Amino acid sequence: EEVKKLLSLKSQLGIDPKPQKVKGNSEKSKENKKPSGEDGPKKFVLKTAKGTRDFAPDQMAIREGVFNKIISCFKRHGAVTIDTPVFELKETLTGKYGEDSKLIYDLADQGGELLSLRYDLTVPFARYLAMNKVSNIKRYHIAKVYRRDNPAMNRGRFREFYQCDFDIAGQYDPMLPDVECIKIVVEILSSLDIGDFVVKVNHRKLLDGVFAACGVPNHKFRPICSAVDKLDKTPWPEVRKEMVEEKGLDPSTADKIWEYVQLSGGTELLGKLLQDESLTSQKRAVEGLEDIKLLLQYCEAYGISNRVSFTMSLARGLDYYTGVIYEAVFTGAQTAVAASSDEEGSVGVGSIAGGGRYDELVGMFDGKGRKVPCVGISVGIERLFSIMEAKAYESGQKVRTTETEVYVIAAQKGMVEERLKLCKALWDADIKTEQSYKKNTKMLTEFQYCEQTGIPVAIIIGQSEIETGIVKLKVMSSREEREVKRCDMLEEIRQVLASESSVESKPSISS
Amino acid sequence: EEVKKLLSLKSQLGIDPKPQKVKGNSEKSKENKKPSGEDGPKKFVLKTAKGTRDFAPDQMAIREGVFNKIISCFKRHGAVTIDTPVFELKETLTGKYGEDSKLIYDLADQGGELLSLRYDLTVPFARYLAMNKVSNIKRYHIAKVYRRDNPAMNRGRFREFYQCDFDIAGQYDPMLPDVECIKIVVEILSSLDIGDFVVKVNHRKLLDGVFAACGVPNHKFRPICSAVDKLDKTPWPEVRKEMVEEKGLDPSTADKIWEYVQLSGGTELLGKLLQDESLTSQKRAVEGLEDIKLLLQYCEAYGISNRVSFTMSLARGLDYYTGVIYEAVFTGAQTAVAASSDEEGSVGVGSIAGGGRYDELVGMFDGKGRKVPCVGISVGIERLFSIMEAKAYESGQKVRTTETEVYVIAAQKGMVEERLKLCKALWDADIKTEQSYKKNTKMLTEFQYCEQTGIPVAIIIGQSEIETGIVKLKVMSSREEREVKRCDMLEEIRQVLASESSVESKPSISS
Repeated sequence: EEVKKLLSLKSQLGIDPKPQKVKGNSEKSKENKKPSGEDGPKKFVLKTAKGTRDFAPDQMAIREGVFNKIISCFKRHGAVTIDTPVFELKETLTGKYGEDSKLIYDLADQGGELLSLRYDLTVPFARYLAMNKVSNIKRYHIAKVYRRDNPAMNRGRFREFYQCDFDIAGQYDPMLPDVECIKIVVEILSSLDIGDFVVKVNHRKLLDGVFAACGVPNHKFRPICSAVDKLDKTPWPEVRKEMVEEKGLDPSTADKIWEYVQLSGGTELLGKLLQDESLTSQKRAVEGLEDIKLLLQYCEAYGISNRVSFTMSLARGLDYYTGVIYEAVFTGAQTAVAASSDEEGSVGVGSIAGGGRYDELVGMFDGKGRKVPCVGISVGIERLFSIMEAKAYESGQKVRTTETEVYVIAAQKGMVEERLKLCKALWDADIKTEQSYKKNTKMLTEFQYCEQTGIPVAIIIGQSEIETGIVKLKVMSSREEREVKRCDMLEEIRQVLASESSVESKPSISS
Repeated sequence: EEVKKLLSLKSQLGIDPKPQKVKGNSEKSKENKKPSGEDGPKKFVLKTAKGTRDFAPDQMAIREGVFNKIISCFKRHGAVTIDTPVFELKETLTGKYGEDSKLIYDLADQGGELLSLRYDLTVPFARYLAMNKVSNIKRYHIAKVYRRDNPAMNRGRFREFYQCDFDIAGQYDPMLPDVECIKIVVEILSSLDIGDFVVKVNHRKLLDGVFAACGVPNHKFRPICSAVDKLDKTPWPEVRKEMVEEKGLDPSTADKIWEYVQLSGGTELLGKLLQDESLTSQKRAVEGLEDIKLLLQYCEAYGISNRVSFTMSLARGLDYYTGVIYEAVFTGAQTAVAASSDEEGSVGVGSIAGGGRYDELVGMFDGKGRKVPCVGISVGIERLFSIMEAKAYESGQKVRTTETEVYVIAAQKGMVEERLKLCKALWDADIKTEQSYKKNTKMLTEFQYCEQTGIPVAIIIGQSEIETGIVKLKVMSSREEREVKRCDMLEEIRQVLASESSVESKPSISS
């Protein structure tokens, strides 16, 4: 068995000798690979697994800022959160993702259950609802998911990435949960201030109605739907070719579909479609149109009509959608940044959030087939990280990776215990404080550290200060230095911190 | 291949047909198993993987409260955070965990690299430092780790669990980073208010010195150290038996060790040991004692001497420690709760945090063997969750799972769009607001929902309110109801919320 492992390791190293192109870490990991082959006693490859990356402190600070904005939106809407394990029984994921099932990571069979890493958060959510007999819940879940995508084929696509899902489960009245999902997407994207966007909406039943009205045979609905899904990236002639040549559709049927899927607009388009007799003869089409009509009406009440576009070419890849579907895309000047940055797995090019209604998925897990209707959105948070990172670096402002408020400095050598006592007093007062871990420090180096890391206040003690019961307080931004009694120190620091944070421009993107 | 998978699935189902005993979910998953065999079209087992569990919203609220306290402590001490992937190259983990390596989860070989789920956060941290040539950092990392422990053998031990690590890497002066780790443990455990505790400290070099002084041959240091490590759970006669019979130690040598490892205390013990000539003839022992002496002196400056106990039987299981080691254990009345609850993987019975100095680990990853000295602690956060959960349920107070402040209610049927407009106004003002997803609601049911979920304010609109430009504001705690002008609504709500949150006892453990 050992030999087998070694052989497999060897062949694996031969097959995949180059570090993958992963943003941020790639240059460094290349650098680090060299020594391991050249001069080191260590022969192993020093890298992260293909398609994965570490997050450095500055990236984490940006990530935290994005998370905080998104989570506060979910909480504003009264959502709870749950957590599920990173792996599920393999059978739980089986038959949920169609062709993409080949991208699921399996765990090795080490005796016991067959397990797979989660591929998204929706299927574990449905499993959770069925297993715990939860019939209504409004929850968000932000966690990593895993897909064995080929990074060479899908540039910038990671194998480990965050998903950020908000879903409303329960038997409710039409479009009320659905419209709140759109409202949330609009709130989140507006709060991040990353450029103009629009939320495209469509309806699976309307698409089915269109296909039926155009003469697509029932069994070809899904393949044709998946062809329509490509229209955001692929010009019509190519999509038409796929429909006709690969999927055997009558050319005239394809052209009829094209007449419909080009359309987009608002209530005026709805009116037109409701007068289209070939469409209104299809029950599904009418159901879809009525849902969209109500949805647009509710969007009006939420004041988000200007952000919503009824777009008949929107199809969404996943099989499990049964009703309204949506997708938020950039429209403004930021589009270039967005399109060039990393892509979250579940959303298409230029798209930043997506979702829809899936009323049948929970029933697939229930022994009695009991259904729990669900609707949800997934925010393309990896894309948002990339955009916010790019924004932070473009702005030239240094991203603070700590929130340290005070740095304690000794004016002479060997005052370690006095420094410790001062730190203790500050920590006990909940003031974020650091000091050097060196016994003897140079004041100049210490001040430089404060400036580099953006620490606003330095507290300096020397022998004479200790004897007279004072400290020196230095405000780093103004370099102003003054003497403060030990008993007034906390209050003085708090005042400086309050005035500094109101005067200066926000130091970090996360605040 | 399909057949193979099916066979393997079948045999696996045969071997492990019972749901594991996992706290919280176990009863429910038993319930749910029955239907799947009896009457359903679904034959699969509806459960989470063995040794893992879902977290329900109330558990998540408690978890968030614990996280917030711990993270705010780390931030108070100026720590940054990083993140690493959930899986590493298998070789990265190889040779780091000794016997426990068999508990590592491997991923299936689906072509490409051989991968394993992380077993702790320390080895990925060391890999990160070496790969990115980071020579000093103070970071925390809270994330899940994975161990194929046998739940039947180790009750209450999960296979997926959080670790919560704080480490200081860098070439610094003796004991300054080390003492801050202890200070942090004391701050965290004090802030959670879960009973008395003490932080035991010892030193690997001192242990080695003791073994040498007692006549243990060099090559038996580690096995004997691992026997000493069992003294917190196992009485001396059994440990002695292991030393003598299993590990071939001379009985008189074992008895000499016993004379030392019984000792615990503070500076007075140190003084005694520094006069012990058989010990002071050992260079390592002297180095260890000098470190401990300085550490206790710094603890005095931090005002935490009463929380620290120099305990010579403390050994810690992990091989990679090279200096100071510590372990926090409960001492007071809460011990019973603690001992009966779930146990985090890296800490022993009754223990709630542990760590130590490991100066060689990063060098194992560096091509040139360049060392980065490190010291750190791991907080047993799963244990803390369990204790906080038990506290919350014992107190009988309902744990709020949302932070919703206002519930919007219609007095008559069919006022959906008016409700939507009201919600929009409240959300836009950053007031956490919910409403029903039903078109027609009953006021009584709505009020009951507010009471059950702890929502402090209800806003009621009816036809007459809309016509006169007012709303009814109901304070749920006092049932007081008053009319408020629409233009004054936000201000009035904010005032009620402020007074409610100052009057009432903290509604949730997380606040």
